[in-house]
Amino acid sequence: MTDTRTVELEQDRYYFTYSAKHPPTARVDPGDVVIARTLDASVGAIRSESDLPSLKTVRPYVNPQSGPIFVNGAMPGDTLSVEILSIEPTEKVAASWVRKDFGALVASSSTPMINPPLDEAVWLYTVEDGKLRFKAKKGGRTVEIPMKPFLGTIGTAPVLEEISSLNLGPHGGNMDCPDACAGNTLYLPVFVEGAYLFLGDAHALQGDGELCGSAVEMSSKTAIKLGLVRGRGISSPRIESPEERMAVGMGRPLEDAYRAAQKELLLWLRDDYGFDLMDAYQLVSQVGTARIGNVVSQKYTIVAKFPKKYLGA
Amino acid sequence: MTDTRTVELEQDRYYFTYSAKHPPTARVDPGDVVIARTLDASVGAIRSESDLPSLKTVRPYVNPQSGPIFVNGAMPGDTLSVEILSIEPTEKVAASWVRKDFGALVASSSTPMINPPLDEAVWLYTVEDGKLRFKAKKGGRTVEIPMKPFLGTIGTAPVLEEISSLNLGPHGGNMDCPDACAGNTLYLPVFVEGAYLFLGDAHALQGDGELCGSAVEMSSKTAIKLGLVRGRGISSPRIESPEERMAVGMGRPLEDAYRAAQKELLLWLRDDYGFDLMDAYQLVSQVGTARIGNVVSQKYTIVAKFPKKYLGA
Amino acid sequence: MTDTRTVELEQDRYYFTYSAKHPPTARVDPGDVVIARTLDASVGAIRSESDLPSLKTVRPYVNPQSGPIFVNGAMPGDTLSVEILSIEPTEKVAASWVRKDFGALVASSSTPMINPPLDEAVWLYTVEDGKLRFKAKKGGRTVEIPMKPFLGTIGTAPVLEEISSLNLGPHGGNMDCPDACAGNTLYLPVFVEGAYLFLGDAHALQGDGELCGSAVEMSSKTAIKLGLVRGRGISSPRIESPEERMAVGMGRPLEDAYRAAQKELLLWLRDDYGFDLMDAYQLVSQVGTARIGNVVSQKYTIVAKFPKKYLGA
Amino acid sequence: MTDTRTVELEQDRYYFTYSAKHPPTARVDPGDVVIARTLDASVGAIRSESDLPSLKTVRPYVNPQSGPIFVNGAMPGDTLSVEILSIEPTEKVAASWVRKDFGALVASSSTPMINPPLDEAVWLYTVEDGKLRFKAKKGGRTVEIPMKPFLGTIGTAPVLEEISSLNLGPHGGNMDCPDACAGNTLYLPVFVEGAYLFLGDAHALQGDGELCGSAVEMSSKTAIKLGLVRGRGISSPRIESPEERMAVGMGRPLEDAYRAAQKELLLWLRDDYGFDLMDAYQLVSQVGTARIGNVVSQKYTIVAKFPKKYLGA
Repeated sequence: MTDTRTVELEQDRYYFTYSAKHPPTARVDPGDVVIARTLDASVGAIRSESDLPSLKTVRPYVNPQSGPIFVNGAMPGDTLSVEILSIEPTEKVAASWVRKDFGALVASSSTPMINPPLDEAVWLYTVEDGKLRFKAKKGGRTVEIPMKPFLGTIGTAPVLEEISSLNLGPHGGNMDCPDACAGNTLYLPVFVEGAYLFLGDAHALQGDGELCGSAVEMSSKTAIKLGLVRGRGISSPRIESPEERMAVGMGRPLEDAYRAAQKELLLWLRDDYGFDLMDAYQLVSQVGTARIGNVVSQKYTIVAKFPKKYLGA
Repeated sequence: MTDTRTVELEQDRYYFTYSAKHPPTARVDPGDVVIARTLDASVGAIRSESDLPSLKTVRPYVNPQSGPIFVNGAMPGDTLSVEILSIEPTEKVAASWVRKDFGALVASSSTPMINPPLDEAVWLYTVEDGKLRFKAKKGGRTVEIPMKPFLGTIGTAPVLEEISSLNLGPHGGNMDCPDACAGNTLYLPVFVEGAYLFLGDAHALQGDGELCGSAVEMSSKTAIKLGLVRGRGISSPRIESPEERMAVGMGRPLEDAYRAAQKELLLWLRDDYGFDLMDAYQLVSQVGTARIGNVVSQKYTIVAKFPKKYLGA
Repeated sequence: MTDTRTVELEQDRYYFTYSAKHPPTARVDPGDVVIARTLDASVGAIRSESDLPSLKTVRPYVNPQSGPIFVNGAMPGDTLSVEILSIEPTEKVAASWVRKDFGALVASSSTPMINPPLDEAVWLYTVEDGKLRFKAKKGGRTVEIPMKPFLGTIGTAPVLEEISSLNLGPHGGNMDCPDACAGNTLYLPVFVEGAYLFLGDAHALQGDGELCGSAVEMSSKTAIKLGLVRGRGISSPRIESPEERMAVGMGRPLEDAYRAAQKELLLWLRDDYGFDLMDAYQLVSQVGTARIGNVVSQKYTIVAKFPKKYLGA
Repeated sequence: MTDTRTVELEQDRYYFTYSAKHPPTARVDPGDVVIARTLDASVGAIRSESDLPSLKTVRPYVNPQSGPIFVNGAMPGDTLSVEILSIEPTEKVAASWVRKDFGALVASSSTPMINPPLDEAVWLYTVEDGKLRFKAKKGGRTVEIPMKPFLGTIGTAPVLEEISSLNLGPHGGNMDCPDACAGNTLYLPVFVEGAYLFLGDAHALQGDGELCGSAVEMSSKTAIKLGLVRGRGISSPRIESPEERMAVGMGRPLEDAYRAAQKELLLWLRDDYGFDLMDAYQLVSQVGTARIGNVVSQKYTIVAKFPKKYLGA
């Protein structure tokens, strides 16, 4: 019998890239539970409505990452499992903001237009008893909304490159998928010895697509349990909930993210559950759902989902 | 007091375009209930696994439409409301198929590639007691799935053009949005006197995006209740469920459909519910959901949704 | 021996849709030369800088078409050839304009954003001796530029549908490809008996992509010579210049237009010039050029080009 | 008076990332000429038709880069100019190839499909007297084509990240723009002290879009002359030829690359040549051209071009 060991990360500094060149914050074994404190996307800089992002943050020094966590025994070609046990807010306030050149519904640096930009703005949300309170800037309307916390960024170190925590790819990163929440397990490819897991950018809540470019951004205390699937690789992140198998697709345009997610899901059904590819194609076409993660980052994300109840015996 | 009148359409022929040039099948008043029989997308031609679409169907003579229904008093600039009361299968079998050059995950006529095509294939589903039975072609696995019927195509006559029922636009048409289901109400722009409502292409079930290019296609007996919002126009279709307000966005690439849906939703919140546009932008970014309709047709569709409970008093 | 007959179109009215339902303006034989007067895209409404498009034009009643020309003997499955002999301006002024919600570099109805719109504006160009004179609104700079006239819209009647002259498709239409110029020959699919050729929307000049949404729009006197390739169909428009074979690709996103053009070009090289498909793929990859037609309309266009000198003996 | 110094790079190893962490191969002054030997994209591994890329290369260890060149005095916010003096082949053979999952016209890792893949293949080109000889695999046809050599990859070190030489961004990198040729000058942003210039991936010839995913790949001896524009930054690469000013746009979908290039060009005309933005928008719309660089890499590229003759006095 093995006791579960709990390791609390002591994070001297935070990182803005996914890379195996950063020194591990901790070395843990598969089966260990890790507690991480994560900073919010603004590195704690935006705490009032006058803390405009252009004044308080400097890209690319946002989305600070906790870790890296070195997982003993993890080797390239393995798969790292990350069961998310809990994601708890550590402050009484969370924030969301609009930048001048970022977001799905504005002229942005990636979809440039010559229209005049919107003004920057910050909204603060109070956090209490699992609920958020939104207050309109005009008219004073308030809305109380249940939190649905998740990790905006989580991933392993890529091979060769050092990748900004604003970016995303097969290693994970800034996926902004609400399914990275407590109760679910992520599967991530291992590209380097030790895997080098990073996590951060907790979101108290986010709508589909992260329309305005930021979620309700919060600092967190997050608990995860690590596991290792040895000798079995995956080519991009997957997620499992009690009810569903999910594949995360990334790309631009958004239909390419959709295609990537769906194809990975089909291969999963074929390789692990014995479906013929065409049968899987047909069945997913009718019972599969697809949630939009982000439509704002360097790659968009879509999560393709398949109900476990249709996997068969 | 007015009694609700029920009008059963007697459909001598079916139409493959949305156009006010077709003679009305019926003339009804706002408040009337209309019962329509709709044919399946294949015009009833695909009823066995050997009925391959290339043998049995000829594009663009698919997606046959019932109607047009002339709504007395409907004038350009009005909005037609269509409350869907019921959509019932009229046969014991429904079908789905894969064409050689159509679908989100294959080289298609709209995303051409030079890879070899897949083989055509048809899957039959039995329909019984509100359930569908899928049978895998290889391995014999069967899966029982609850039906979730909806109308794949519904819309009014456009101005000037005569538009194929395979296409879609501000008038509606081949949107393939599962939210066009019983219990919900669609709102459609009126472009010509009488509105000229068409409907068809009932789906017993469809996953998000209609991945393989066809849903579980069925013939139906559909009951709708018509209404008219006079003197208030909308620029594209909207939907209302008991829980949510929804705007249908159309376009390519998929992010443009997402943008169209979200912007329309924001304008709705601003114009009808007194939100400041920026506050609406922020709130939708956190509580809005977005369902993918189709990723296969000439325009893709995304339905942006806002929970009514956050609309305020 | 046959004399070339010249037919001058007497255009009582102009059309805003491509459709075989419109009565032919003339019936001609293959080999005939046709002279058409075409109106500019604004139907002659924009002739000063204060003629703002929102005041003077009503969409979709723009892009008026001359024709239809019924070509005797043309049958579905044939290909219509249109040799463009000349396109001459008929006025001393041409115009270009910016609408509030149209163009590649602004929030538009197809790529919606919530940024404030640009102001509408009109620029007038003087037309003289084959040259255009541009005058800047601010600072007074003037630039003299050679005209390069072409037809923005040209096409045949589609099957089943009646398609706006703002739209485009396998039948041609609003392609906005500068290669539709004098000296070149277009090949268009014939879908209905008589082909029903339409043409209009002459451009005195246009940059790649029609960035701002309108070219230098002019009225024209255009001469074309018609021909018929019997029993040999094509699936989308092609163009031939003295130096190059070209295929017009249409679609969204822009890479899908690129793919469509390139695939059609490869099939052409394979079917008409004996190339193996893979060899054609390789050779086109190195010597093929691709010109961007429009990045503003309902479908974007790209023209893939192959130098005749590499076709071999 | 200063003599031009010529520095020949002695390249002990080649790099697969753009990063200021690599030790400079040489330190040079603005005004110096640098001679670099570049390896071909396959690192010299593909030299016969049986050298299939999946056998001979391992991604991401392709596109080897020469450099980095440390430019004395270059500081963040400066602009580095790179005048390309010559690009000469160093072998009698060049090669192009098709991978299974890469290219604009096949199911790829970024646009996944479930069609069967194409077979891998390699084409060898002989290089002689400035000409390439293509030989068809089937039928034996040969075609002689003039070389038009350019650098597929060139760029500076980015801030924070270490970016694969297969990728591209504001720092340049794998742009695959044929305008990076002898006679032209590139302008690149400087993000780190010394700029850290890398270059490689010479192409003997490439069609618009690099359709099949590889150009005619060659090793080269390349001469460049470096310069520095102090205190004036640019946000993305620009190019100047004797006839034209050009801005390189990158992004996905392809229309976003088009938008990025055009907007940068407009800002250039406004800031350096005194155009009002709207006048520039109008004039570029009519006289601007736009060349497609690549439609295969992680970001697509389009080069927007403006004729110098219209810049005015």
